[in-house]
Amino acid sequence: MTTTEQPILLAAVSLFSALHLGFQARRVGWSRMKYKIMPPAVNGPPEFERTFRAHQNGVEFYPVFLVVLWTSGLFCNEALAALGGLVYVVAREMYFTGYANSAEGRLPGFYLMICVLLALAVTAAVGIIPSFLDKYLSIKILSRSI
Amino acid sequence: MTTTEQPILLAAVSLFSALHLGFQARRVGWSRMKYKIMPPAVNGPPEFERTFRAHQNGVEFYPVFLVVLWTSGLFCNEALAALGGLVYVVAREMYFTGYANSAEGRLPGFYLMICVLLALAVTAAVGIIPSFLDKYLSIKILSRSI
Amino acid sequence: MTTTEQPILLAAVSLFSALHLGFQARRVGWSRMKYKIMPPAVNGPPEFERTFRAHQNGVEFYPVFLVVLWTSGLFCNEALAALGGLVYVVAREMYFTGYANSAEGRLPGFYLMICVLLALAVTAAVGIIPSFLDKYLSIKILSRSI
Repeated sequence: MTTTEQPILLAAVSLFSALHLGFQARRVGWSRMKYKIMPPAVNGPPEFERTFRAHQNGVEFYPVFLVVLWTSGLFCNEALAALGGLVYVVAREMYFTGYANSAEGRLPGFYLMICVLLALAVTAAVGIIPSFLDKYLSIKILSRSI
Repeated sequence: MTTTEQPILLAAVSLFSALHLGFQARRVGWSRMKYKIMPPAVNGPPEFERTFRAHQNGVEFYPVFLVVLWTSGLFCNEALAALGGLVYVVAREMYFTGYANSAEGRLPGFYLMICVLLALAVTAAVGIIPSFLDKYLSIKILSRSI
Repeated sequence: MTTTEQPILLAAVSLFSALHLGFQARRVGWSRMKYKIMPPAVNGPPEFERTFRAHQNGVEFYPVFLVVLWTSGLFCNEALAALGGLVYVVAREMYFTGYANSAEGRLPGFYLMICVLLALAVTAAVGIIPSFLDKYLSIKILSRSI
């Protein structure tokens, strides 16, 4: 693969989002120290439990995010998908800091995250379906396949 | 990459499985509402805890699934791996709905999932090992490498 | 893609690490049987809870590991990244067996894992940034881009 063919934007956004998830794990560690919750305990004051669950929720959604990011970027539009990925990281940061403050504080980031995931999933499907029809059923739709 | 070179089937199955995992998270949210378990709490009546753990188990195995799906599909056979991926989603649905009903109900889906993961892992290894021997040790085995 | 272009080492290390994570899940199952902790329960004697959390921590970091492994391997050096991936699996094994014995026992593996993740992340960034500058800003730095 030459430089111009590599999905650099997707790789850069993936790396950035992975470091952000690692940083959330770090903040759970700081919260453990602050409230003196020693591993393997995961229960404690509500402040710690919210921080712990904020990171867990990030872990639960992260592979889903990676799949829709890459399928959208490779089959629809790389720059748009990468932009969506940046908004996803912003949404996760809003979720984490909001949740650490209060249970309701997680909601704005959560709704923004759902919007981004749906947008990436829809654009991925829009890109995959014509390619699939073209390759396996020899049905050509949309100008890009003509 | 031209359309014919793209791993469309693997991308389509990955997207489908990611949406299925996201839908499991949604069903945990519905279970939270039904049993009035407000975040960050993760304990409650057994019905809720089983639903919560069913999703967690899906999260635990999802990256393992993606790795064996793509290595099997790229190094052995894309169509077979994609078929395995569809069976995996069926197994995860059996696991989730079965576990939501009773702890024993998770077992049929669990065993089917293990079979799929092992089949994908074995075919991935069967594809990778000859490629590795050919590229790094110049040992050619199997007709595909001749 | 021809055999010589495929990232075989990255695929092989990914497959190995995925099987190792699956094996950790298996060992949690064995610990459930030993201490008679029936699903969906995740609380029990400290020995079980440490084993359970050791696997959970592996799950939390696994997608982060995959992202830095592949971005480092594709944009910097595949053999170095694959070597880092092998050290990562060793670190996770040290973490798991150490944590199963005592809470302090998780630390050597944990610190080794953090070192590997940082090394992979830095080499990934070192590879991505010049490619990005070259492709999007037409700025050529380092001899590899000239």
